[in-house]
Amino acid sequence: MELLGSRAKTASAEMARAPSSIKNKALLNLAKALRKNTAALEAANQRDLERATAAGLAGPLLDRLKLTTKIIDTVAQGCEQLAAMADVIGDIIGMKEQPSGIRVGQMRVPIGVFGMIYESRPNVTIEAASLAIKSGNACILRGGSEAIESNKALAALVQQALADADLPPDAVLLVPTTDREAVGHLIAMPQYVDVIIPRGGKGLIERISRDAKVPVIKHLDGNCHVYVDDPCDLEMAVKVADNAKTQKYSPCNASEGLLVARGVAAAFLPKIGAIYAAKGVEMRCDPEALAILSGVKNASLVAATEQDWYEEYLAPIISIKVVEGIDEAIAHINHYSSHHTDAILTRDHVHAQRFMREVDSASVMVNASTRFADGFEFGLGAEIGISTDKFHARGPVGIEGLTSLKYVVLGQGEVRA
Amino acid sequence: MELLGSRAKTASAEMARAPSSIKNKALLNLAKALRKNTAALEAANQRDLERATAAGLAGPLLDRLKLTTKIIDTVAQGCEQLAAMADVIGDIIGMKEQPSGIRVGQMRVPIGVFGMIYESRPNVTIEAASLAIKSGNACILRGGSEAIESNKALAALVQQALADADLPPDAVLLVPTTDREAVGHLIAMPQYVDVIIPRGGKGLIERISRDAKVPVIKHLDGNCHVYVDDPCDLEMAVKVADNAKTQKYSPCNASEGLLVARGVAAAFLPKIGAIYAAKGVEMRCDPEALAILSGVKNASLVAATEQDWYEEYLAPIISIKVVEGIDEAIAHINHYSSHHTDAILTRDHVHAQRFMREVDSASVMVNASTRFADGFEFGLGAEIGISTDKFHARGPVGIEGLTSLKYVVLGQGEVRA
Repeated sequence: MELLGSRAKTASAEMARAPSSIKNKALLNLAKALRKNTAALEAANQRDLERATAAGLAGPLLDRLKLTTKIIDTVAQGCEQLAAMADVIGDIIGMKEQPSGIRVGQMRVPIGVFGMIYESRPNVTIEAASLAIKSGNACILRGGSEAIESNKALAALVQQALADADLPPDAVLLVPTTDREAVGHLIAMPQYVDVIIPRGGKGLIERISRDAKVPVIKHLDGNCHVYVDDPCDLEMAVKVADNAKTQKYSPCNASEGLLVARGVAAAFLPKIGAIYAAKGVEMRCDPEALAILSGVKNASLVAATEQDWYEEYLAPIISIKVVEGIDEAIAHINHYSSHHTDAILTRDHVHAQRFMREVDSASVMVNASTRFADGFEFGLGAEIGISTDKFHARGPVGIEGLTSLKYVVLGQGEVRA
Repeated sequence: MELLGSRAKTASAEMARAPSSIKNKALLNLAKALRKNTAALEAANQRDLERATAAGLAGPLLDRLKLTTKIIDTVAQGCEQLAAMADVIGDIIGMKEQPSGIRVGQMRVPIGVFGMIYESRPNVTIEAASLAIKSGNACILRGGSEAIESNKALAALVQQALADADLPPDAVLLVPTTDREAVGHLIAMPQYVDVIIPRGGKGLIERISRDAKVPVIKHLDGNCHVYVDDPCDLEMAVKVADNAKTQKYSPCNASEGLLVARGVAAAFLPKIGAIYAAKGVEMRCDPEALAILSGVKNASLVAATEQDWYEEYLAPIISIKVVEGIDEAIAHINHYSSHHTDAILTRDHVHAQRFMREVDSASVMVNASTRFADGFEFGLGAEIGISTDKFHARGPVGIEGLTSLKYVVLGQGEVRA
């Protein structure tokens, strides 16, 4: 691992000074190579799938491990999209003359080397590699052991694409072993690695955060809320509250809690309750919501426990609570939410402003579905993860999260008095 | 400490929503109270000084502990300057409409609660408190045990100033005990404290970084360089290289290493060598510089060892090396410098651009003294420290370093397709 770290560090200096045109060439090379080598990639992936099947891996995990022609084409498209995006490296912002005569601004530069630790999905290998190339960083990738053959085949294409563009192949290094100790080393080399990005279950991320000797871009829970305010366009509220919960149950930005202002509860809850009932969503309610919803046909109603307000179900279950109004809604969210994404549905301008300002979450929304909390939907072009931290990057992390701003000073021989 | 943490956390929510006018009122209250209570503050400080003298504290440490009328007036002025500055909290940047119809931007919000750990100088108590107030954060302050009486007296004035502006006094809490265990607790309460800012010796900062369970804004070494390029205005280079080393020896932004391009070494080195010799600066040189400087009268010349290139002297000593040109200069700096502040002195535009882009330091300068790397000189209005990290804040840290950007989304009932 020391050797990998040192090679990545050396490559990172070359990547940092690479012109946009060269980095884009490598990305286009990579897209072409992925499409050209689809058959070979599928063959490598097949070996992983056979090993995983023999080891008795469960169906959904097998699904995530699969590298299909369609998935390969999608990641190739991702590379092309990144190549088409503007380069932010070298941007200088806020250059201002100071009283001493010096001009001071900030230049966006790559952060250096990032380490990425992820599970099953081999397409993440290409997503991380392409983001590293575009952002002028080097990276060390540690995929899941179940995907090692697929990842090796993908990483070889990346290194060839880099070499063909006269960039250092060491800019994207795959940890070739599957032993657990490698992760322990990777997260404890501050001399070589500037930041670690873990993608996977909460247990993995907590373990890495605890043991890492470098900063970690963390993505923990997504206990997201929709608060239906008074006054509110109820038709819009039903549409958004439905989408936020049921459009897809597994993403972190799906809503897990529904808060309803007392003034609109009697009118709103039966409408959304009927939709949830029809879609088989279990409702875990406080006594007041339970009473209002008890008339809904086929509703699966359960009395909520204190623990329900904390829960990230990632399933057809939602907690529902009637609140007095905006104050109680903000207090409840700041106490129970995981500070990922929370939305207010309202007609009241003052309430909208207060919610935006006072809710302490990475993404705060007015009259939109929490499902929009996503790098692509936010216009970042690509996403390496979603941060629930307040430090450095917060919310969906795109290329800027892999950069830092350094001060640049232009003088004409000024000295300090 | 748990109780302090919980109180600060509660206060931080109120501070986050406080309007600018109220925060500024608290700052002006504080300035007034500092001036009005100068005699009482000096009396409290006198008790610290007597205890420190009895304990045999060295002269420079006693100096730093001293709270004079002039120092009190200076920190009062600092509060007034902060009150006059624009408030960045609530600023929304980059609001753009996305293809889905939602508009996405980022709002600057306080980071929450910061913990500050510092030594002797009691004026830091007011600097930290006033920055917390302006930035809408709460803070927990842990000053040096030798300054406990002064710090208690100052903190009492801060809490009164907050109360008089109808802000929570708990927004600025001083750790009332001087035991070492308190620090261990303060840096390990992620549920209450969002970031730790240590100010003090390298040992203190390394210990805190190692043990902290929350992010740390670190300020380690300042091994800063001046590189004299070829071609270069030699008169300007002499003036800047002199200032960068000798204007003051103790600050972290003073230069410790001088690199000189071979093409100008014979012309430049005798000139700067004469000045350093006159000011009693010891020169630790590579063989080539040594040969050129050997003719300088009264020069204190020493052959440099490998360790010298790493050294932060903070003293009238400088390392000097002749390099081939820009490539060797950048490679030397990226290898040996502490990534704090490095400057090129040049007439060559391409070299200036390359130096700015490729030198991996928090502040990179062209034709200016490294001594300018400072929050006030950079126009930040105030400075809580200088970060040598790449993550979150880099370089001089002002109010923005105590904030985070959260995403705000404005919709009209949009849902995810």
